[in-house]
Amino acid sequence: MQKEFDDMLAQQYGIKFNDEKLLDEAFTQASYVNEHPDQGLKFYERLEFLGDAVYQLVVSDYIFERYPEMPQGRLTRLRAAMVNRHSFSRFARECNFEKYIRLGKGEEKAGARNRDSLLCDIFESFIGAVYLDQGLATVQHFCQLVIFPKLDEGWFDEFFDHKTELQEAIQINGPVAIDYQLLDEDGPDNDRQFKVVVVINQESLGTGEGHSKKAAEQAAAKAALDKLGIQDQKLQ
Amino acid sequence: MQKEFDDMLAQQYGIKFNDEKLLDEAFTQASYVNEHPDQGLKFYERLEFLGDAVYQLVVSDYIFERYPEMPQGRLTRLRAAMVNRHSFSRFARECNFEKYIRLGKGEEKAGARNRDSLLCDIFESFIGAVYLDQGLATVQHFCQLVIFPKLDEGWFDEFFDHKTELQEAIQINGPVAIDYQLLDEDGPDNDRQFKVVVVINQESLGTGEGHSKKAAEQAAAKAALDKLGIQDQKLQ
Repeated sequence: MQKEFDDMLAQQYGIKFNDEKLLDEAFTQASYVNEHPDQGLKFYERLEFLGDAVYQLVVSDYIFERYPEMPQGRLTRLRAAMVNRHSFSRFARECNFEKYIRLGKGEEKAGARNRDSLLCDIFESFIGAVYLDQGLATVQHFCQLVIFPKLDEGWFDEFFDHKTELQEAIQINGPVAIDYQLLDEDGPDNDRQFKVVVVINQESLGTGEGHSKKAAEQAAAKAALDKLGIQDQKLQ
Repeated sequence: MQKEFDDMLAQQYGIKFNDEKLLDEAFTQASYVNEHPDQGLKFYERLEFLGDAVYQLVVSDYIFERYPEMPQGRLTRLRAAMVNRHSFSRFARECNFEKYIRLGKGEEKAGARNRDSLLCDIFESFIGAVYLDQGLATVQHFCQLVIFPKLDEGWFDEFFDHKTELQEAIQINGPVAIDYQLLDEDGPDNDRQFKVVVVINQESLGTGEGHSKKAAEQAAAKAALDKLGIQDQKLQ
């Protein structure tokens, strides 16, 4: 298993550990350590602590450089979308990390191997181990291969909120009144359609439609962002 | 002022910026940019975003190495004590950063220069600028000079909670009953004294006194930690 894991890391990501014990530690749960008390093993939690901060910096650095005009508020939200436990477990599964975790028998039986929370932890502990063994540049390389392409694949789009985006873009130099007005509402109760216009400084900047007022407002905000040319600051 | 600032950074911290514009950006508030619209200035917020992550990693890395036996939970709490806005404003004042901030006239009049929240932001934006201009090693060097000695000066001690520490140390391999028992209570109402013993697995591990039950419990937990030799894992 260890050999298979080493080969996978080398082939897929070009990573070859100098200190294999760090990699072991990153993939070992406390339950396994407890079952093998004589082997002097360590479990992943401290590496998880470190990996959390390493990953946060690598992501921050990347989006800071990639979106040179993106204001702080949106950078912070994008980072939060990329640095959260939901994303971590998806990344860990993408790398098939669940295969290589060392668990105690009870945890194995309880199905821990496929638990999101464990996969999150392991993703972070892996990053921590790579950082300690290979340095920041190797973590950056790993993220270039595994994480950053997800930006273009739309993994994090759901976290964007066009109304907030518009507000931030418009109010960058101080408060401006942004008004969402309902233009039209029709259709049967189970298929109601709303049409909204967003008005900024008495000027209609975009209209949007949707099955709820909220959805129509989001669509109107998106249209206004497009009209103002602000979409370029977002993803791409 | 710029000259004085450059000299201060060079003399105190050995930092000499390659790109002075980054340093300017780190110390410029939006209000100043708005008052000088023709100068193509940038304000500090994006650097603050980046500096936040840089500082978090530098602190994490340092305490990870310094306390090789400290479990994850306590590392996380110690990091939270060092990476928080209250600490940032103290650091910024320690470095006299308030002198070098560029503010608009209105903000100056409103006393922004000495506002904790602005000083926090500037501390982070400074870290971000140093990272971009000089790299991680220079940020680490700055923290070695300015931040890490504060650990030994007790700046972060208030964040430690002996009862939680004891619980974590004892329960590392699973739940253990920890019982705080009131041994004695006397004195007048305005000077009441409590005495508590902490009992773990039917063994009395420490006693403590205080003017409240809570204080006596903390003292008992501290005594138990000392008896167990766990104090070494804390600070020092």
